[in-house]
Amino acid sequence: MNEPVIDLHSDDYFMREALRQAARAYEAGEVPVGAVIAREGRIIARAFNQVERLKDATAHAEMLALTQAEETIGDWRLTGCTLYVTKEPCPMCAGAMVHTRLARVVFGASDPKGGAAGGAMNLLQFPTLNHHCQITGGVREKECCALLKNFFAEQRATENQEKKIRNSSENTENVSEKS
Amino acid sequence: MNEPVIDLHSDDYFMREALRQAARAYEAGEVPVGAVIAREGRIIARAFNQVERLKDATAHAEMLALTQAEETIGDWRLTGCTLYVTKEPCPMCAGAMVHTRLARVVFGASDPKGGAAGGAMNLLQFPTLNHHCQITGGVREKECCALLKNFFAEQRATENQEKKIRNSSENTENVSEKS
Repeated sequence: MNEPVIDLHSDDYFMREALRQAARAYEAGEVPVGAVIAREGRIIARAFNQVERLKDATAHAEMLALTQAEETIGDWRLTGCTLYVTKEPCPMCAGAMVHTRLARVVFGASDPKGGAAGGAMNLLQFPTLNHHCQITGGVREKECCALLKNFFAEQRATENQEKKIRNSSENTENVSEKS
Repeated sequence: MNEPVIDLHSDDYFMREALRQAARAYEAGEVPVGAVIAREGRIIARAFNQVERLKDATAHAEMLALTQAEETIGDWRLTGCTLYVTKEPCPMCAGAMVHTRLARVVFGASDPKGGAAGGAMNLLQFPTLNHHCQITGGVREKECCALLKNFFAEQRATENQEKKIRNSSENTENVSEKS
């Protein structure tokens, strides 16, 4: 009876929803990143990374969620909306968030090399751009990171296995050529 | 008989094609920016800014041209391609250009406040990102700038006229209320 009360309006709750989307990307063999957009406590868009499936390098979870939210609202201005994403947004997505005038961006895993919400740079609060977004990082960070780490570890394992199979078949060919 | 020979593979030629696209945006009441993507001397994508028409803040000329080129090639990797755009790309578009691994970006008008190809920042050659694009700026710069300046001047004139009409109708209302 001591279960914590789930606050349906907390960052934690919405990030869990973004994580569900990231899990769908994982299942589809895509880099596992998920995003949701909330307005007045309600989710108005959900999306996961679909770069490989759509053969489109711009089909990041955030971009798909942003266009979905624009369609829901019927306007390109997403004033008052908060975007939750499992990984710190890249420059492309951060740029799009500024264009759509998002109020706030919440992310899980940070990205020191490519992140544009303070990791490698901060485009969400860039002095000369005409809109700034509030930023909260590190929400459900461990789960968000674990998903990404597992995915890349699995990918490397598969690649190594394929290399081994290739090598052993090449060796067999060499042996049969010599014999 | 002394007309200069048109080099169909020059930056100048492709920028002229991008300018045609920008003119289409102008006619449609959109901020006049146009883009084309060329591969091996052939144009594989053409697009103009459609933010208002599509009610989508991400519908910049460059983004539309990139997804069009991906579709033409059947891959999200645009290796060996050059993008020509009449205005220096914003952070969102520059980020997308890095993702698609464009070889080269050529622009006309520079943008010191929001440009991400050296104007306000340089995302096309950012040290920690995994791809860098070659950059050439200032191609047919005068025409590219003129189109943008005319557009914004016209917009301001229309706004001022609307304000005047509003004010004079308010004054008329006030007079009739008083009488």
